Amino acid sequence: MKQFINQKEDMVTEAIDGTIATSGGALTRLDGYPHIRVVVRADWDKSKVALVSGGGSGHEPAHAGFVGAGMLTAAVCGDVFASPSVDAVLAGILAVTGPAGCLLIVKNYTGDRLNFGLAAERARAFGHKVSMVIVDDDVALPDLPQARGLAGTLFVHKIAGAMAQNGATLEACTTAAERVIKNSRSIGMSLDTCTVPGSSKEDRIPHGMAELGLGIHGEAGVEQVMSSGAKDALAKVTEKLAITMSDAPHVALVNNLGGSSVLEMSILTYELLRSEIGDRVKFIVGPDAMMTALDMHGFSISVMALSDGDGELLSQPVACPGWPGCKIIAQPNVLPLPDGLSPIRAPASAHDETKAFLTACCKILIAAESDLNTLDAKSGDGDTGSTLASAARALIDAMDTLPLADHTQLYRAIGLELSQTMGGSSGVLLAIFFAAAGDASSSGMAMRAALQAGLDRMRQIGGANPGDRTMVDALLPALDALDAGMAEAALAARQGADYTATLTTAKAGRATYINAEQLEGHVDPGAEAVARLFEHLAS
Amino acid sequence: MKQFINQKEDMVTEAIDGTIATSGGALTRLDGYPHIRVVVRADWDKSKVALVSGGGSGHEPAHAGFVGAGMLTAAVCGDVFASPSVDAVLAGILAVTGPAGCLLIVKNYTGDRLNFGLAAERARAFGHKVSMVIVDDDVALPDLPQARGLAGTLFVHKIAGAMAQNGATLEACTTAAERVIKNSRSIGMSLDTCTVPGSSKEDRIPHGMAELGLGIHGEAGVEQVMSSGAKDALAKVTEKLAITMSDAPHVALVNNLGGSSVLEMSILTYELLRSEIGDRVKFIVGPDAMMTALDMHGFSISVMALSDGDGELLSQPVACPGWPGCKIIAQPNVLPLPDGLSPIRAPASAHDETKAFLTACCKILIAAESDLNTLDAKSGDGDTGSTLASAARALIDAMDTLPLADHTQLYRAIGLELSQTMGGSSGVLLAIFFAAAGDASSSGMAMRAALQAGLDRMRQIGGANPGDRTMVDALLPALDALDAGMAEAALAARQGADYTATLTTAKAGRATYINAEQLEGHVDPGAEAVARLFEHLAS
Repeated sequence: MKQFINQKEDMVTEAIDGTIATSGGALTRLDGYPHIRVVVRADWDKSKVALVSGGGSGHEPAHAGFVGAGMLTAAVCGDVFASPSVDAVLAGILAVTGPAGCLLIVKNYTGDRLNFGLAAERARAFGHKVSMVIVDDDVALPDLPQARGLAGTLFVHKIAGAMAQNGATLEACTTAAERVIKNSRSIGMSLDTCTVPGSSKEDRIPHGMAELGLGIHGEAGVEQVMSSGAKDALAKVTEKLAITMSDAPHVALVNNLGGSSVLEMSILTYELLRSEIGDRVKFIVGPDAMMTALDMHGFSISVMALSDGDGELLSQPVACPGWPGCKIIAQPNVLPLPDGLSPIRAPASAHDETKAFLTACCKILIAAESDLNTLDAKSGDGDTGSTLASAARALIDAMDTLPLADHTQLYRAIGLELSQTMGGSSGVLLAIFFAAAGDASSSGMAMRAALQAGLDRMRQIGGANPGDRTMVDALLPALDALDAGMAEAALAARQGADYTATLTTAKAGRATYINAEQLEGHVDPGAEAVARLFEHLAS
Repeated sequence: MKQFINQKEDMVTEAIDGTIATSGGALTRLDGYPHIRVVVRADWDKSKVALVSGGGSGHEPAHAGFVGAGMLTAAVCGDVFASPSVDAVLAGILAVTGPAGCLLIVKNYTGDRLNFGLAAERARAFGHKVSMVIVDDDVALPDLPQARGLAGTLFVHKIAGAMAQNGATLEACTTAAERVIKNSRSIGMSLDTCTVPGSSKEDRIPHGMAELGLGIHGEAGVEQVMSSGAKDALAKVTEKLAITMSDAPHVALVNNLGGSSVLEMSILTYELLRSEIGDRVKFIVGPDAMMTALDMHGFSISVMALSDGDGELLSQPVACPGWPGCKIIAQPNVLPLPDGLSPIRAPASAHDETKAFLTACCKILIAAESDLNTLDAKSGDGDTGSTLASAARALIDAMDTLPLADHTQLYRAIGLELSQTMGGSSGVLLAIFFAAAGDASSSGMAMRAALQAGLDRMRQIGGANPGDRTMVDALLPALDALDAGMAEAALAARQGADYTATLTTAKAGRATYINAEQLEGHVDPGAEAVARLFEHLAS
């Protein structure tokens, strides 16, 4: 099963029940399963004009996702890509229609026209006021006498829905719907066909090609065209739209046909606004999956010339889960980069004792280069010694630029130096260690406490705990013992380092990828470096 | 190009620009392209705690789609599946952090931890209050010391974001974020790998299998499992979640990993609520694409045990395009089917003259059966005559059940009879014709006007215009001429029918699929039927 469905026969009712259950009580349905599948606003009181739409399923969230105050009153759902029955449509109409009447919004497919049309007649026989509009926004074939209904249908739902919500009459809603249909144009493009549950997938579109002018039922596009990216796709689509558009301001609706990634949809939208019709787009709906063809890896663009008041009606908030909102196109006021991206460098200052101490530390690490590399070769890629020695050499070179006389600033300066000269995660982690120690020192902590604060931060960021076979296993006990003197600290560091040779399961760092046999008996090179540092300082 | 992107190098900035342009002015960015890609709330005044998140791109709408009042203040976007640089994160922090401080929300990946961690240190060196939480909600491997950050991250964005919006301190937001992380669990499942732009797609998952416990960067799942539909998928996923969950009420987040259809996501949600953990799900977020892995055909479920107040914080409205809202799970009050689905049948009544007239009409159509079939064979499937004759025979059989004495009701009764006995589109269209004529008649119209009203409605629904090579070509002129007498009407019908033989481009009905040579010289069978009817009635 290459799709997340159960029995084909149940998928529409299951999907509807999923939609209703996650509506927070806003939606309900008629008790007509399995054949009558009508999703209804739970709060509907028949006090206003009802809007009923629907058609085949497989276009989710259309149309159930557009049921709610300000859009549809009910959605009648057929099988996948098949019109609902006359009885189902009639049930929908009768369930929601009050004295204000009902507007049926139907996409231009023969089955939908006939079944909604006959249901409308039956409802009229009960004395209901019912009008019906047929959406034919597809411009794939300019001369087609029966253009299909595509995502432009959503303009009708939104504008007529907002009017109905605001108390307009059936006549006013119908007239507005007809105007919206007259002004709406859509065209789709796809890189692949859709997967119809229960049918094998048609492999129709060759690699490197796309179909232009396709519908929402898996039917072939009007033409196959070369596909060379988002800009090209939008150029081909907007060329078709442009010849049918006036110079008036337009709203555009960017629809994911189901299988395009969110990243691609954003890029397509970016290209829409830079396309030949981009300047005319004043409002935008999406990008989002609104009128899909199951999982089709494609998109459609719908445009509508705006009449007075359309912007307000389109922007009027609704609670329908399928409607992503309509936004005015605004050029962002791009913000300047903040000051401070160049790190603060404290002024250099001399301090002979500090310089001697730091230089000694560096020389210890330089002297240990070969031994540490050998150790690292057991558990990593054999470069711990070189990495530390290089950083130590760079620190010696930079010594006279450091704020040696200001120990608080010195921590930060060392951290900065290491972050710039020492590669890999360990450089970042040591930079964090010294920066955090500097922070602690600047708030008045003594050296040991400041270094422990640095260690805490390094552990938080690096995620290493004692026993994880890292430098923490030496550094933590050494700092804990430091108040008792450097000799005690050195002893603790050595014990901690040696302990790592007994740890055969690394839990942080690169050694996590090495198996137990390889690790056993070898001290972690980072812990060894810490131990040697303390041992030499104590001697 | 099997994706809607342009140059790989530009895709992140183009997608961000698309997102910002469609935000209605709510979003902007720092002027740091191409390397510093930070999306920022346009209305931010630094008066409250700032929330900064981000990481690699390819997870859209995460994280830019969650920037807005009540969620993130800024999102720092790396390349696809790669951490942003320290400088980029630092720029984000410095741009939005005021005296109230900044909370960094980081998914548990080494690169993100290190780069956000060091950026935090640098920001602290400027005196900013910065705290950082690391999200590790993945339960794919229960013993993994470094669980990954997945879609549970969005619970952190939402709850800490709502608190910050409500004026909470940095400490309170951080504590809440840590609690949310502790209580959050996620796991993903996919039927296919994702397509990383610029890389060839890995064909890793055999047909009929799925990967369980996968991350959001295309890395392989913890195990491959048999895939046998939505119910099974949810059972496997919730089994992993259940062993880590308390009995407390939970919120669930249903995330599309990018390539699942909206239909599938609704079915998966339906199954979640019926699964072994369904009873514990009190609130739900989605289904929607929130934390994607590009176009991955999969989903993830995240759950979080609810603490006091979480429901309100999760439900607090936000304006972020990526957040679908959090809804309380409610059982719908399913509505009974409306009365009236069984059509109204007017009581039978006798009227000899009407019975004779109707019977004569029926016999004319029965007599024409063979001729009409022959004509239809030229342009269709050769059954027009049989279809009409069968309906005529059924009408004769039903004659004594009809309201023959009430002509208004009779139209409707004939329409109903035809819709039940006559197959295909033509049955529905004639049913509409008679039902609409009945409507018109009931509002006082005379016969000709009523029949014309029926024709108008049939044309609206069927979409046939004069010249489209349908029965309209005979019926329309016949009704127009009817006031001048039946002989005139018959002449007009015949002329109209004969005219269809000259029409070589059908624009409605099945003959649209037939080429000109086949149509030329043959009268449309529907039009011929109309002509014969009028001719016999006139004779």
